[in-house]
Amino acid sequence: MQFLSDNAAAVHPAVWDAMRAADDPQPPYDGDAISQSLDARFTELFGREAAVLWVATGTAANCLALATMCPPHGGVVCHREAHIEVDEGGAPGFYLHGAKLLLAEGEGAKLTPEAVRAVVDPIRDDVHQVQPHALSVTQASEYGHAYRPAELAALGETARARGLGFHVDGARFANAAAFLGCSPAEAAGPCDALSFGFVKNGGLTAEAIVFFRPDLADVARYRRKRAGHLQSKGRFLAAQIAAMLDGDIWLANARHANAAAAEIGQACGERLMHPVEANELFVRLTAAERQTLRGQGFGFYDWGSDAARFVTAWNTREADAKALAQAIAGL
Amino acid sequence: MQFLSDNAAAVHPAVWDAMRAADDPQPPYDGDAISQSLDARFTELFGREAAVLWVATGTAANCLALATMCPPHGGVVCHREAHIEVDEGGAPGFYLHGAKLLLAEGEGAKLTPEAVRAVVDPIRDDVHQVQPHALSVTQASEYGHAYRPAELAALGETARARGLGFHVDGARFANAAAFLGCSPAEAAGPCDALSFGFVKNGGLTAEAIVFFRPDLADVARYRRKRAGHLQSKGRFLAAQIAAMLDGDIWLANARHANAAAAEIGQACGERLMHPVEANELFVRLTAAERQTLRGQGFGFYDWGSDAARFVTAWNTREADAKALAQAIAGL
Amino acid sequence: MQFLSDNAAAVHPAVWDAMRAADDPQPPYDGDAISQSLDARFTELFGREAAVLWVATGTAANCLALATMCPPHGGVVCHREAHIEVDEGGAPGFYLHGAKLLLAEGEGAKLTPEAVRAVVDPIRDDVHQVQPHALSVTQASEYGHAYRPAELAALGETARARGLGFHVDGARFANAAAFLGCSPAEAAGPCDALSFGFVKNGGLTAEAIVFFRPDLADVARYRRKRAGHLQSKGRFLAAQIAAMLDGDIWLANARHANAAAAEIGQACGERLMHPVEANELFVRLTAAERQTLRGQGFGFYDWGSDAARFVTAWNTREADAKALAQAIAGL
Amino acid sequence: MQFLSDNAAAVHPAVWDAMRAADDPQPPYDGDAISQSLDARFTELFGREAAVLWVATGTAANCLALATMCPPHGGVVCHREAHIEVDEGGAPGFYLHGAKLLLAEGEGAKLTPEAVRAVVDPIRDDVHQVQPHALSVTQASEYGHAYRPAELAALGETARARGLGFHVDGARFANAAAFLGCSPAEAAGPCDALSFGFVKNGGLTAEAIVFFRPDLADVARYRRKRAGHLQSKGRFLAAQIAAMLDGDIWLANARHANAAAAEIGQACGERLMHPVEANELFVRLTAAERQTLRGQGFGFYDWGSDAARFVTAWNTREADAKALAQAIAGL
Repeated sequence: MQFLSDNAAAVHPAVWDAMRAADDPQPPYDGDAISQSLDARFTELFGREAAVLWVATGTAANCLALATMCPPHGGVVCHREAHIEVDEGGAPGFYLHGAKLLLAEGEGAKLTPEAVRAVVDPIRDDVHQVQPHALSVTQASEYGHAYRPAELAALGETARARGLGFHVDGARFANAAAFLGCSPAEAAGPCDALSFGFVKNGGLTAEAIVFFRPDLADVARYRRKRAGHLQSKGRFLAAQIAAMLDGDIWLANARHANAAAAEIGQACGERLMHPVEANELFVRLTAAERQTLRGQGFGFYDWGSDAARFVTAWNTREADAKALAQAIAGL
Repeated sequence: MQFLSDNAAAVHPAVWDAMRAADDPQPPYDGDAISQSLDARFTELFGREAAVLWVATGTAANCLALATMCPPHGGVVCHREAHIEVDEGGAPGFYLHGAKLLLAEGEGAKLTPEAVRAVVDPIRDDVHQVQPHALSVTQASEYGHAYRPAELAALGETARARGLGFHVDGARFANAAAFLGCSPAEAAGPCDALSFGFVKNGGLTAEAIVFFRPDLADVARYRRKRAGHLQSKGRFLAAQIAAMLDGDIWLANARHANAAAAEIGQACGERLMHPVEANELFVRLTAAERQTLRGQGFGFYDWGSDAARFVTAWNTREADAKALAQAIAGL
Repeated sequence: MQFLSDNAAAVHPAVWDAMRAADDPQPPYDGDAISQSLDARFTELFGREAAVLWVATGTAANCLALATMCPPHGGVVCHREAHIEVDEGGAPGFYLHGAKLLLAEGEGAKLTPEAVRAVVDPIRDDVHQVQPHALSVTQASEYGHAYRPAELAALGETARARGLGFHVDGARFANAAAFLGCSPAEAAGPCDALSFGFVKNGGLTAEAIVFFRPDLADVARYRRKRAGHLQSKGRFLAAQIAAMLDGDIWLANARHANAAAAEIGQACGERLMHPVEANELFVRLTAAERQTLRGQGFGFYDWGSDAARFVTAWNTREADAKALAQAIAGL
Repeated sequence: MQFLSDNAAAVHPAVWDAMRAADDPQPPYDGDAISQSLDARFTELFGREAAVLWVATGTAANCLALATMCPPHGGVVCHREAHIEVDEGGAPGFYLHGAKLLLAEGEGAKLTPEAVRAVVDPIRDDVHQVQPHALSVTQASEYGHAYRPAELAALGETARARGLGFHVDGARFANAAAFLGCSPAEAAGPCDALSFGFVKNGGLTAEAIVFFRPDLADVARYRRKRAGHLQSKGRFLAAQIAAMLDGDIWLANARHANAAAAEIGQACGERLMHPVEANELFVRLTAAERQTLRGQGFGFYDWGSDAARFVTAWNTREADAKALAQAIAGL
């Protein structure tokens, strides 16, 4: 009964099938038919012209996207607890050649136009201070909050007004979209590039960088190769993504994970540190309570000294979710 | 009847099986049992203590290895036609933070101690010139030549004498080892790190960086994450590699490809630009001859204006190899 | 009556004289006799073996020093308001190839061992988080506080215990040393490298990086050239530094500036935001009061909306300092 | 009787005077009146709108200029013996974040449109190969050749046709202009940026980057600060440059050096490896002959094993030049 993370969950059968089906002679890199089809697939999904690159990890997706928006001497506004700041081993510093993350505050790891302006406005327009060139937000946020379409629209407007590129880290974009119930386009907002995550949602080794500005994608293609992320058998990455789009498996998987999280969340009541919108739960639990739960066979990470994080996945069994809900309720 | 490249060839069934078998709950990144087993596997294979990291591409493998040996202000000696110089989109410049490739000459894209010294010796030991810190050779070379163990030993000695780290790009290491018929350790020589390729030899998305100096591996782990190459479902990469080592599939696959190349090579006679040692053939063919071959259903790349490159793979059908041999003989 | 900054103050006559005296044929770069003498001069001054490089700016001095201590994938602990974080246009990101500044808190822009540990201790020792490799403090701090010898010793001990390189940004090291009245060695603490500032203290274009570890200096020499900071007529930089050391002009100049600041500080009373230890004053003044002072001919920068910063220099006239003291007292 | 290099020659009296005159209170960095005047001065000199930044070294000038033209994943075409390739300690790799120098051939270290195309044309327009983004030539070349205006025009046309930025390394631009006798604009050609050297020509610590595209200068200002090359007492650099422009001292100094070189050159006859156009001479001399000359008190560098390099300067005494000419003639 594992709730450690969705990042190592099983692979969806349709993904396996699609990969096996792709095991026929095809041109290398992204010259195969499936890779070539991705632009059209995402253009249709978002209703905006999209240019799409597959990569193996969310870190690479985020950093390649941002590297197209921010020069080495610039800065990227993001939340103080953003994944790119906290958990990517300094990858933005590598990919952006020393550009700086400019850290903003916000409840639940979410940014607002005010929070962005609080970072950007005090920066003197002189060469002694790093100038902001891009804005990056996480959908759903690192605490499982989904930005509402209107919130993204407002952030996009702020970015535009300040001349900032707008990137969305969508490692759990599917979960956000499933929660919001809106169109993918609304869930992504008016961004220039979206890191659309599949690995946490039933994929194997493929994430998509969805560029809504073709000029950025053109740059990213060179940067992807230069970063060693252009795989010769890329058709197997493209196949994963295409399989997830077919019949909206990406959405069904996310709905499943969200539902499991919601069920557990209802049992947590006042223990919840954040409302449960996606597939992560941050739950106040004493050390003793956590020990009790682990004794009952539940796997999860501690979150600081007084809480735990539970993550559901596309393949979380309903029985496991129910069992966890009951176990927490019974503490 | 494709002889374009081995880089997009089919995936070996044992690789598929191993990946499916790995689709059970495991810790993320390289915390799974298979990833954890790789050090021991390669230590056994090479008879030297090895610390091993999987990555998705040969470019990442090469560059991560070199980044542990050469500081940003240093240089890496390699052949003028080395893959890292010619075909990696500037990845060494990225991963090594602007370090310089110091280009040496040599027949068949192979280096000798003399060739290395011809580059290294004229460099004044002052701050105005980039100082060499590492040596990188390709086994088999970009023209399909295999370094003999004694040649590697001599190069290793040269590297040691000059204080250079020693890296072997083994994108087609299996083909070299199969040709040489020696032990893997002899085929790798006294190097500090080997990029051991699997993708061209029946793998899907996994290459191994085999470090024979654990201190370098420790650094490489941070660099791999920072480069976005630490995959959360890394067990699927580890599984590919382990599967290839089981029962020496890596060697059998390479022998198969080499045999096909040898058969074709015998038909080429004087047309051969290089002796056929691994699985690549560089064959003098006029434009008309190439057109004839393509008309007969053979796929391959032009090599300049007067030649063609043919590459065999682990799954090249014997019939196809024979057909190509006959077709060339019949020109 | 300028109190804007010491960074553009006049050049000391002895510096001019020394530069003119150096205008004879000498080897380029740092091959001249004066450059060659600097190691011995600073070794004598600090009573520790020192290897010294001149550079033109404090930014270059800080970044070159730190680049020898922290790899591209590492981090440098510094104060949230440290000059390297706030005012160097992202130079550390450039020189350290994307390494990260890890920001600590502390009164008056000073760090303590506790503040350092509060940053370092929560960092998990895994590849997802940037690991600390160096510590940088500013002597005197950005708010004009001088670290006491015991404080530096404790910070040095913390650095050693954690395996961090220890750098002191001494843009106003002279002012700190003059205030402390201790030996230069005590004022620098057990650091590995000191950026010893001269430009703000009567120099023209020369700062010294004083390495107390020769191995770091060896690396820095390559990095200095690579950064375009090895000047061919370097003898003129060396001459400035040597001139400032002769007869302890550096100390006399700093004492003068400190004395002027102290006199003004006594007139400020409760208005002082920080005790005046070096040559900077941060003074609470309303907009109207600032206007009054400016109307009386005093030049200075606003510090936020309710305060002003005054900086004295080696050449601040006593009459000007007195006048400012009286003007503030009279508000 | 030194002919080692012009890079460490004495400072012109007018430069000293201008620096001393600048020793009055002025805003820091480039806020002073002289720095602010440079755009107009160079605009007048070149008859094209110019935006000008001072820096301390030619390496910094070259690299900052190129960094505005070439992204980290791109390449700069230059001569195999260009100073940026051979003698700058890898600075282009640092400043351009790993961008690659693409090496072209040419007599006397000069490039032609054909030589540029020979490098550029074979580069496949795909992500595996580094794409060219800029062209850099040296005026006068590393062997003392001056590009004629028509040659620069043709190179500029080639650059424009290929979408390359066009940079001129003018470490000895004055010597080229003096030799050519044309306007500065003709001597610089249709370049986007010129590194206009003063240090070798009587300056102390100031070179000018002359941008003919203001958008590039805007970027370079941030990069200059980030590289630690924005000096707080920048007025002293600006003063040097302004002094050299006053009354065309830069041109008079170069004429003097060129004349001395020409006089020596006439005595060298067949010994000359290159025609003498600027202030450098490459002269075939046996070891014994060099020993003889050194025994007569002449200082110079060996150039390989069978030649020597002599460099004249703005302050080479006529008697010394004559003496060297006679000594060589008398060998």
